[in-house]
Amino acid sequence: MYGILGKLLATPGNRERLAQVLVAGSRDMPGNLAYVVALDEADELALWVTEVWASREEHQASLQLPQVQAAIGEARGEGLIAGFGERFETRPLPDSL
Amino acid sequence: MYGILGKLLATPGNRERLAQVLVAGSRDMPGNLAYVVALDEADELALWVTEVWASREEHQASLQLPQVQAAIGEARGEGLIAGFGERFETRPLPDSL
Repeated sequence: MYGILGKLLATPGNRERLAQVLVAGSRDMPGNLAYVVALDEADELALWVTEVWASREEHQASLQLPQVQAAIGEARGEGLIAGFGERFETRPLPDSL
Repeated sequence: MYGILGKLLATPGNRERLAQVLVAGSRDMPGNLAYVVALDEADELALWVTEVWASREEHQASLQLPQVQAAIGEARGEGLIAGFGERFETRPLPDSL
């Protein structure tokens, strides 16, 4: 299994919209076992994404999916992303899902 | 909804065991919607837990559950925990689960 824990920084006032775009773009991705989007309670511009994938390769392939490309385009087009914070690659335990 | 993203540091050689103890202790917790344990690929002593709860109160109550107390006791008894890293409280998006 392959996982990612990443922090995104939204532009002011756009965190909720960015979170929705991420969730919408994360539907029906082959090999994706979890894609949890969570707003950081201490930083009003930050949100965290916890991803779990059956494999690194399936995550890599997902970046070309139309819904993912559309979400990236929307986020960029609407200027929703101010930057990226910490990012950790992980190995999730299968029986913790 | 209420969430936590937290990093734990295992004592040398005990990360896998600590991860199993955490997973075993996280079964059947009322109000728990996700408890993902993932090993950090860059730090062999670190693991991350992504928790999603229906409410803060249900998370709080879970700390008294027998299985959680047993897991805490096991982890302490076996000297599995070296320390705690970053910890973030979050507000997970319901439709990202």
